[in-house]
Amino acid sequence: MAVYTEVDDDALNDFLTRYDIGEAVAFKGIAEGVENSNYLLETTEARFILTLYEKRVNPDDLPFFMGVMEALSAANFPCPQPVKGKNGSALQTLLDKPAAIVTFLKGMSPRRPDVNQCRQIGEAMARMHLALQTSSLGRPNNLSIDAWDELYDGRESVAATLAPNLATLISGDLERLHDQWPDPDTLPRGIIHADLFPDNAFFLGANFSGVIDFYFACTDMLAYDVAIALNAWCFEARGEFNMTKGRALMAGYDSVRSFTEAERKALPALIHGAAMRFFLTRLVDWTDTPADALVRPKNPVEYAEKLGFHRLARTVEDYGYMAG
Amino acid sequence: MAVYTEVDDDALNDFLTRYDIGEAVAFKGIAEGVENSNYLLETTEARFILTLYEKRVNPDDLPFFMGVMEALSAANFPCPQPVKGKNGSALQTLLDKPAAIVTFLKGMSPRRPDVNQCRQIGEAMARMHLALQTSSLGRPNNLSIDAWDELYDGRESVAATLAPNLATLISGDLERLHDQWPDPDTLPRGIIHADLFPDNAFFLGANFSGVIDFYFACTDMLAYDVAIALNAWCFEARGEFNMTKGRALMAGYDSVRSFTEAERKALPALIHGAAMRFFLTRLVDWTDTPADALVRPKNPVEYAEKLGFHRLARTVEDYGYMAG
Repeated sequence: MAVYTEVDDDALNDFLTRYDIGEAVAFKGIAEGVENSNYLLETTEARFILTLYEKRVNPDDLPFFMGVMEALSAANFPCPQPVKGKNGSALQTLLDKPAAIVTFLKGMSPRRPDVNQCRQIGEAMARMHLALQTSSLGRPNNLSIDAWDELYDGRESVAATLAPNLATLISGDLERLHDQWPDPDTLPRGIIHADLFPDNAFFLGANFSGVIDFYFACTDMLAYDVAIALNAWCFEARGEFNMTKGRALMAGYDSVRSFTEAERKALPALIHGAAMRFFLTRLVDWTDTPADALVRPKNPVEYAEKLGFHRLARTVEDYGYMAG
Repeated sequence: MAVYTEVDDDALNDFLTRYDIGEAVAFKGIAEGVENSNYLLETTEARFILTLYEKRVNPDDLPFFMGVMEALSAANFPCPQPVKGKNGSALQTLLDKPAAIVTFLKGMSPRRPDVNQCRQIGEAMARMHLALQTSSLGRPNNLSIDAWDELYDGRESVAATLAPNLATLISGDLERLHDQWPDPDTLPRGIIHADLFPDNAFFLGANFSGVIDFYFACTDMLAYDVAIALNAWCFEARGEFNMTKGRALMAGYDSVRSFTEAERKALPALIHGAAMRFFLTRLVDWTDTPADALVRPKNPVEYAEKLGFHRLARTVEDYGYMAG
């Protein structure tokens, strides 16, 4: 929703001499992404997105993110493709910040995904997982279950202000999740997007056209990515789970890469846990974002409501899954 | 620097049915403009800017602004061209706000305009004035000298905090400006841009490519537009006037439309007054913008420093003007 770092025309033109992509003919800051500064860059040759990585991104992780996009592009999975500078690197520095140029991807993010889009994102996610299966890249998921107690610690009183009894419910959830969390070695693992919300998926008309924003990508159980997407794509307002959408998303995924029996068993805990992860990070942002920040934090209540549904679900069938 | 109104894909697609410009293939909020919400819209046919007019724009003025852009486009002066809906109007409503689509203009705004760009903007402004000379459109300039006492009233104490003695100096300036202000009927009048800052001018490489943002356009003395541009384009940091740039801008203008003798005499007061207008509106924004606003107000000190130069200037030659 903001541009943190202003790039003027002199700095841009100087920066572009490091690439072979022509000269700038248009350059506009785009109000998108909460972590970085993004610019739409049009050159005499094509359109691109120029990103400056702000302090919430660890520069050491950038080669991994670039590598994921490169591997996907090489496998013809639609996503922004990092553009290498003349020095052979997709990672450069602009105004003392890490910066990269990626190709422009056409498409629109659905605000209210429909069943067809849920099925397609399931299929696309499975294709993405398969395309990354041979990659040697890796990055730990530092926002998974091991991080949650610490994220929650000291914020119980904020949770209590959000809804009656919420603080107690969250503690109960955390206990249950620690009990039920699958042994990660028993499930297929690989590189996951870990943030595949509708804002990060593009469609052209009714058809899936690509995925953006790989800045939470990491190595984890593949089914956990499905769990994150199910939370992000298949709920209506006020924590109402749309089972038709849930069924479509999981069936779409299953049609490209079949869930293992262990994944089907683990999915309810993973789905519950994915809601916990976003509840907790939103709770942290809600507490810690200064009032004059350029970005308005997202209300954690949305995820508290989703947790309410997950507390009652027991099997993957409760989310609409039907064996194919 | 912000998007005030979020337009989702459903609202956009519905909106586009009112036009004959194809279907959306990309749509991004752009961090540009402090008054309105702007989106870059790419359709199957071309690229456009979609603007939602927020509360600082008076909807009654919109037909004038659209008319100015239409008249300029018809005269081949490069600026965004309003796109008419199927109902024949360039003004539509989106999410209960007035909205318009204009064509996308290529180019980059110079952050630090050079002498060549100053000359070209002078030429372009004169061409713009001539292109609008036959227009029957009109809109009073409600931010000119008649408005200044009221803008300043009650803000003397804020001025006093910005620089020693500034409150007294501003009062003196206002008195002098009321004394010296030209009789508007003695100078050529017409439609002026009234906000032709470098952000609102585009260049492609070294060449002028167009003007955007006509939302302060009004009917006034043509030389007042030159006075505004001189303040915006020809100063270095800390109120240092760059006489070479001033000479280039005025010579560029003069080469397309010759200043009358009365204009040459009036220019020092108009230039001083233009600095006053931007000092005062920035002072108001500085005082009135809430701390959590999406836009950071511009510091009025920049214009206080320019006023310091104008206080000492007496003739147009003091700004570098040389008869051709």
